[in-house]
Amino acid sequence: MIVVVCLNPALDITHHVPQVDWTGVNRPSQVHARPGGKGLNVARTLRALQAEVLVLGLAGGVTGAGVAAGLGELGVPCAFTPIGGQTRRTFTVVDGRGGGAALFSEPGPAVGADEFGEFRVQYEKALAGAAAVVLSGSLPPGLPAGSYATLIELAAAAGVPAVLDAHGAALRRGAAAHPAIVKPNLAELAELAGRPLSSSAGDGRPAVAAAAGELRAAGARAVVVSLGAAGLLAVTAEGTWAARPPAPVAGNATGAGDAVTAGLAHGLVLGWPWPQRLAHAVSLGTAAAAAPAAGEFSAADYARLLGQVTVEPAGDL
Amino acid sequence: MIVVVCLNPALDITHHVPQVDWTGVNRPSQVHARPGGKGLNVARTLRALQAEVLVLGLAGGVTGAGVAAGLGELGVPCAFTPIGGQTRRTFTVVDGRGGGAALFSEPGPAVGADEFGEFRVQYEKALAGAAAVVLSGSLPPGLPAGSYATLIELAAAAGVPAVLDAHGAALRRGAAAHPAIVKPNLAELAELAGRPLSSSAGDGRPAVAAAAGELRAAGARAVVVSLGAAGLLAVTAEGTWAARPPAPVAGNATGAGDAVTAGLAHGLVLGWPWPQRLAHAVSLGTAAAAAPAAGEFSAADYARLLGQVTVEPAGDL
Repeated sequence: MIVVVCLNPALDITHHVPQVDWTGVNRPSQVHARPGGKGLNVARTLRALQAEVLVLGLAGGVTGAGVAAGLGELGVPCAFTPIGGQTRRTFTVVDGRGGGAALFSEPGPAVGADEFGEFRVQYEKALAGAAAVVLSGSLPPGLPAGSYATLIELAAAAGVPAVLDAHGAALRRGAAAHPAIVKPNLAELAELAGRPLSSSAGDGRPAVAAAAGELRAAGARAVVVSLGAAGLLAVTAEGTWAARPPAPVAGNATGAGDAVTAGLAHGLVLGWPWPQRLAHAVSLGTAAAAAPAAGEFSAADYARLLGQVTVEPAGDL
Repeated sequence: MIVVVCLNPALDITHHVPQVDWTGVNRPSQVHARPGGKGLNVARTLRALQAEVLVLGLAGGVTGAGVAAGLGELGVPCAFTPIGGQTRRTFTVVDGRGGGAALFSEPGPAVGADEFGEFRVQYEKALAGAAAVVLSGSLPPGLPAGSYATLIELAAAAGVPAVLDAHGAALRRGAAAHPAIVKPNLAELAELAGRPLSSSAGDGRPAVAAAAGELRAAGARAVVVSLGAAGLLAVTAEGTWAARPPAPVAGNATGAGDAVTAGLAHGLVLGWPWPQRLAHAVSLGTAAAAAPAAGEFSAADYARLLGQVTVEPAGDL
């Protein structure tokens, strides 16, 4: 079982409006409400890969109930620790004319130390049956930046490897707790390195590898940088690799990154060597970028891409 | 007890955004979620008048649970009949720069005949203890236009007078079932009359009284037309009256109309003569127009207005 931790889930509401009047009354032609948040996208991808998953996290109020009900409909097992606050919503208005969209993202609920304590109890119980844990997404207000580090240390104590997808102080503190894999994107790695980075194949790549190497030196056992349409760059104890999709795909960047995280966790628990793991992850990410909703991908796209991705040692960077 | 029927309630979500980017990502500075729909506004106003109320209606899904929970927090008793569909949301984005707003109103859930049948059972039970019923707001998809007429006939059979605030076919069919009061606004009355109407004091008023008279002839025992800032025009078996606030107030028109409906129902159960009833209703409506949210009003505003409104016979129109 892979435990996916989602401490700040969301109920994602999308309105499709044929012609938006930004100053008046609109009747959406389509309305969707689905569980959101990076961890939930990871869990959905793992479920699509037939992996056994359990989503743990914090949820409250009727929106929290909506997230749990939505996961139930999707066949994703979850056991949220109840909180007094209300799980956040995101609201997206898609304008039918140009396909443009406005996103309104509510702040997450404030979480108390006692509530995180109750979550820890559930988490430690789940670790007993876990092959890996995935820690993904933002921390809700009230939780200290070291929360992921705490959870990684608890997993390590139970012999369970951790995959971390976070940014800023939560990533910095989490990396120092020696997770098996961290998966920053280019912007997140640049923020941590304190200098601009580019994914361009020429000068940029060695600089990315250097910054990833610094994050390894700070504690992460492997660093896999997602470079968008340019694929992945992995810096690990076994070597450095570049994994590239056959052709750049523009699409859902959030969903793509979460599918990469799912693929990395899946390859980890299956014990695959890094090149196979990276081909899996980059194929999933590319297939997910082309799908309409985060957490979804076409199995046919995935299978086709798996035969076309290239994974090359990049040890001389 | 006044039974307030709300067949198509809503969860009203409002985001206040300091400077909206209609093409990008926004972080609202304030988020409100509260029960909405015209019937619920009526019920809140009645509660503020210390009247005993019970909200009945149809609600489903986590948004339905949110509506019920919100009414509980506001101290408004409710007993919704559960439905398989999901109660609708409305979503309002208020732009902090100019105070402009965009509203996105979801369609209501489709309601089945069996679900309306279960509601009828609850409704008939509640009629046993009811002094009046208020039927207010749109019908959800799936319910026939004669649904309000059915409920008015059931109330009459139990000796309970009905106040109807609806529009279109639901108003036409409802009026034919002889409710004690119907409360169209000018646009709703014009739609029914099939000709344009104006609230201007000169030529317009007799035409409004004539259209209201036609609605009385079609079955309604009294017709009270809300004219916005110009007040009310009542055509009843006891006479015709014009009730005017001391000065026009621009503001929340929806909330104002619902407060008028509440005042009319309240005056009805108290057995007040029409002039007193109309002064009460127009004062509540004017006070509500000035309040920030539908269903709310300042008691001080109401008391001040009550001493300033004029109610004049308009029998010679």
